[in-house]
Amino acid sequence: MEGRIRAVVEHVTPEVDGGRFPVKRIIGDVVKVEADVFADGHDEVCAGILYRHESEDGWQQAPMQRLEGDRWGGQFPVSKVGRYGYSVEGWIDRFGTWRRDLTRRIAAGQELEVEFQIGAVLVEEAAEAAAGEDRERLAGWAQSLRHETDQPVLAALATAQDTAALVRRYSPRRFPGRYEKELGVVVDRPRARFSAWYELFPRSCSPEPGRHGSLRDCEAWLPYVASMGFDVLYLPPIHPIGRTFRKGKNNTLGAGPEDVGSPWAIGADEGGHTSMHPSLGTLEDFDSLLAKAAATGIEIAMDVAFQCSPDHPYAREHPEWFRKRPDGTIQYAENPPKKYQDIYPLDFETADWRSLWEELRRVFFFWSARGVRIFRVDNPHTKAFAFWEWVIGEVKAQYPETLFLAEAFTRPKVMYRLAKLGFSQSYTYFTWRNTKEEIVAYFRELQETGVREYLRPNLWPNTPDILPEYLQVGGKPAFLVRLVLAATLAGNYGIYGQAFERAENTPREPGSEEYLNSEKYELKHADPQAAGSMKEFIARINRIRRENPAFEEEGNLRFHETDNPSVICYSRATGDRSNIVVIMVNLDAFHKQSGWARLDLQALGVDEQRTVQAHDLLGAGRYLWQGPRVYFELSPESLPAHIMRLRRWVRTEKQFDYYL
Amino acid sequence: MEGRIRAVVEHVTPEVDGGRFPVKRIIGDVVKVEADVFADGHDEVCAGILYRHESEDGWQQAPMQRLEGDRWGGQFPVSKVGRYGYSVEGWIDRFGTWRRDLTRRIAAGQELEVEFQIGAVLVEEAAEAAAGEDRERLAGWAQSLRHETDQPVLAALATAQDTAALVRRYSPRRFPGRYEKELGVVVDRPRARFSAWYELFPRSCSPEPGRHGSLRDCEAWLPYVASMGFDVLYLPPIHPIGRTFRKGKNNTLGAGPEDVGSPWAIGADEGGHTSMHPSLGTLEDFDSLLAKAAATGIEIAMDVAFQCSPDHPYAREHPEWFRKRPDGTIQYAENPPKKYQDIYPLDFETADWRSLWEELRRVFFFWSARGVRIFRVDNPHTKAFAFWEWVIGEVKAQYPETLFLAEAFTRPKVMYRLAKLGFSQSYTYFTWRNTKEEIVAYFRELQETGVREYLRPNLWPNTPDILPEYLQVGGKPAFLVRLVLAATLAGNYGIYGQAFERAENTPREPGSEEYLNSEKYELKHADPQAAGSMKEFIARINRIRRENPAFEEEGNLRFHETDNPSVICYSRATGDRSNIVVIMVNLDAFHKQSGWARLDLQALGVDEQRTVQAHDLLGAGRYLWQGPRVYFELSPESLPAHIMRLRRWVRTEKQFDYYL
Repeated sequence: MEGRIRAVVEHVTPEVDGGRFPVKRIIGDVVKVEADVFADGHDEVCAGILYRHESEDGWQQAPMQRLEGDRWGGQFPVSKVGRYGYSVEGWIDRFGTWRRDLTRRIAAGQELEVEFQIGAVLVEEAAEAAAGEDRERLAGWAQSLRHETDQPVLAALATAQDTAALVRRYSPRRFPGRYEKELGVVVDRPRARFSAWYELFPRSCSPEPGRHGSLRDCEAWLPYVASMGFDVLYLPPIHPIGRTFRKGKNNTLGAGPEDVGSPWAIGADEGGHTSMHPSLGTLEDFDSLLAKAAATGIEIAMDVAFQCSPDHPYAREHPEWFRKRPDGTIQYAENPPKKYQDIYPLDFETADWRSLWEELRRVFFFWSARGVRIFRVDNPHTKAFAFWEWVIGEVKAQYPETLFLAEAFTRPKVMYRLAKLGFSQSYTYFTWRNTKEEIVAYFRELQETGVREYLRPNLWPNTPDILPEYLQVGGKPAFLVRLVLAATLAGNYGIYGQAFERAENTPREPGSEEYLNSEKYELKHADPQAAGSMKEFIARINRIRRENPAFEEEGNLRFHETDNPSVICYSRATGDRSNIVVIMVNLDAFHKQSGWARLDLQALGVDEQRTVQAHDLLGAGRYLWQGPRVYFELSPESLPAHIMRLRRWVRTEKQFDYYL
Repeated sequence: MEGRIRAVVEHVTPEVDGGRFPVKRIIGDVVKVEADVFADGHDEVCAGILYRHESEDGWQQAPMQRLEGDRWGGQFPVSKVGRYGYSVEGWIDRFGTWRRDLTRRIAAGQELEVEFQIGAVLVEEAAEAAAGEDRERLAGWAQSLRHETDQPVLAALATAQDTAALVRRYSPRRFPGRYEKELGVVVDRPRARFSAWYELFPRSCSPEPGRHGSLRDCEAWLPYVASMGFDVLYLPPIHPIGRTFRKGKNNTLGAGPEDVGSPWAIGADEGGHTSMHPSLGTLEDFDSLLAKAAATGIEIAMDVAFQCSPDHPYAREHPEWFRKRPDGTIQYAENPPKKYQDIYPLDFETADWRSLWEELRRVFFFWSARGVRIFRVDNPHTKAFAFWEWVIGEVKAQYPETLFLAEAFTRPKVMYRLAKLGFSQSYTYFTWRNTKEEIVAYFRELQETGVREYLRPNLWPNTPDILPEYLQVGGKPAFLVRLVLAATLAGNYGIYGQAFERAENTPREPGSEEYLNSEKYELKHADPQAAGSMKEFIARINRIRRENPAFEEEGNLRFHETDNPSVICYSRATGDRSNIVVIMVNLDAFHKQSGWARLDLQALGVDEQRTVQAHDLLGAGRYLWQGPRVYFELSPESLPAHIMRLRRWVRTEKQFDYYL
């Protein structure tokens, strides 16, 4: 123990759950750190950040500045994928204290002789730590403090800014007080924060209606998906599908022999989670798809659904991984009174949990080794939390660039926990947030609370399981609205593709969110050339996202007031304000809506007195705005939204010749 | 590692700085604990508190109930002085899950045979953990579940409340998930929360003007102090006073031979921090004072000021504990350009810090051994934080009932840190909070933020160093106002006695907060029998405090609106609402003020439709109130405040014979 430590560090931010979990960032970010740093008594203190990548032993240092009172702030860069640690330390600034007091003594006309001797010692200490020219300068100053007799000369030297800066730079940190915890940052590649997902059933990719599509067929879709601007192609499970209790069309019991079953009922005689569905092709076909996708700028996201059909090899080879019923049968999935007899859940309370965990890790490693770097995890909230923390850590230790998307539609605290445990992105409640109040409240929760530090939303207007009421009743305008919102409210979004492009909106029955004739249970014929597709609109939205860096930055979503409850207005802007985008969306899919928005111009860094040009990247109109009040008029069919890029109007009349 | 743990615990409250510091409570409190507890999947969970006194090895358990969503709450009692640890654990409620699902299955008319077998196993597990009659009942139920064939009988048994309660009581906690931290509670005796302090210079206690008072003289004051209702008598330092650079009257340089000096300039030839000032008496006199005080219900608070006069024995014997100047002299205290040459501060950065810490601990132990159990620590913020955490821990390990009051008038974060480190009570900014807005804002900060968990305010309207402007200009009404506020806004308060009773309000010079002819620097003649004293008013206030248990409870301060900015209204109420007190204070010491208050009756547990009697314990008036709007009229001289005890008006007209 060192009893001479006098500075303390408290309330470091960012910090998740007292340091239990890391925050998330991407390569190239600077991590902004704040802390309360203070000492006993009246001495001045200094503070600094310590940080290191997990591959480094020693700490690197970053400076901190006093923000206000005892609050200090600084930042450090993260340039490598992986985990960083950081902490803050504070120490007594002896030279700063001496200099501050000297100024007061000079003002009071006090005797200074002994004071200069004290200062000389401090400057000598700094000189010892310095080298080269700096050392010489410091040593020279120390000499002057010791021997110079002209007090005004001495005072000028002692209080000069450049002297202070140089001495501070080399002064030893005597007895630094360290924040008691080392906090963590998990750094991912940029796609963790900015990605556009397209979900596609490969079995629907056959060019001939009625034939089971394959991964080779899927390859032919890549240019189409790329042309719409997506960079992640997410495939539902590609493994053999169980036959026992297989579900028929529209999720019915008693499938016929031609029924293809749900891809999520994984496992059959042909294998389980590391096998290919025979009709989809071979592992080599998978490798080929991965390579071709990469060549078109698309990454394949693999679905990991840790559950088994009764025909899964695990059920025979590892019955101990499942819960047994007293009658000796394996417990199928249930949500009483509903039964899902086509699914056996894995029992994470099995005595043999170690071998189960290891096998599931093997599944990840198997696909990682083939090149998969994005896993979309099905229902992670029905598997043990501790398992996820462990397995994500294991996979990232081998393949640090791997991303995990948590498909957990469940209670907020459970979703947040999964994000904290390591999932890189998370499905959200966006799917059901339709009104202005709902959207504002939800995104404020995601962005303005601590949640932002660890949860990256991935917004989906639809999924194969969810056709929301808003899309069912709102027709094509509803699809346009939800697409604009998903693509512009967060960095990550995705659509369940063909059904979305074609604005499919017929539920299985009134009041249901299931699709009629859902692709989950039958072969569909997907056709990228079909008429009436929204593909061009989608492509435009994705192009706008790519061309405006504001959409790639995090934490810059800001809502602005409107006087019309059906119209939402928000902005995204880069930190340097070189790219400012204002989005206005008419949430009413049935009526034209108009009114006024009141922009927070100060937050946008726009001068109230100057005209800005608002260029609608969606509608292609150009408008001149001045001041915070802005008129809008949005029609569901023709123009449900504005995505306005603001451009500063650089010239004023004073620049014209006639004015001069 | 146990991989089968499925429940997690998050966000436990109370928790200070991620568990780094304990919360504070007193004997007899129940500690209310909340936590987020949840598991993966859809199983029901249970949660419970674990707690133990530091003297105990094993955990005790306290139940928790679901509050809302995944939030759970419970409480545990603290009955011993010392430190308790607590944590929360959650586990899967297998029987509860089974019972919930069974109810749904029954409603859906499903086959239940296997389900009853599953339930039988769970009931058998509980039976094994039970004994006696409970065991027999459980075993009987298990038998029924196994063999009974009448399904309605079985269903009734399985879903009965008493069955569920008994099974839950004995069901083993399988794989409980524990919150990762053990949190702490420091439990003090009740005086830590509720005390009335009286500060008295013993040297002023002589019955003859001009003679130096002694501790024996001080004894004669005890009945007087007790009669005013104080229970802590706080004495400025009683040690020998230095002669070198001794301060004269009114804090002047160059004291004459008859000048007595400041008691805080500790140390002379006669000794230091464990010696008695010869004129005050002997250690035996001190023992006698302590005993006599105890006999009148008064506890002596000792002043601990770790600083030395140049004549202190430490300066000769341990020059290494002080900072040296280059000219070889010891560094005196300074706040440049001010110099305090009569004071040498101890250097907590000394290489010999271990021996310094041990010596200072010895000082505490010396007085603890003589029976002192309250230390008022002078300027703790100018000594190292780590020292305080250590020495308070050391003293409490030997004398657990010891209380420490931090006299730190400094920046909020520093004050809060000292409280977190272990000080039982803290001086506050109350001394300078005069307006309604200031008082409301400050006490909200102290009470409604996490600060309440570790900082217990001790409110002082004046001290020997601080004669606030409000008292200087407001005359006697100002003293009445500040006394009522101090005594009723918090459990602990104190006055610098004689100067307060006599409403002394002349500053040394305009703009100064120092007293003219301050008792710090000269002998005064204190006279409890002096005319014009506020002693009766003070006695009444202290009696009201003692007679109304609402003042002893913590966290029950609630402000109510008034339409007059000069009048503040607040209430204190016991948790069971058996004692409700509403206080109204006219902060304007010059004018009569009247207006309306709007009471939050719901918070007070008072029915809006019923009449309550408001009994003014100060003015002795009685009023009938109905509904939230209440009129007040307060005059500085005659009645600056109401302290209204609310009594429910029990009888209504319906209870009279003629009504029936």
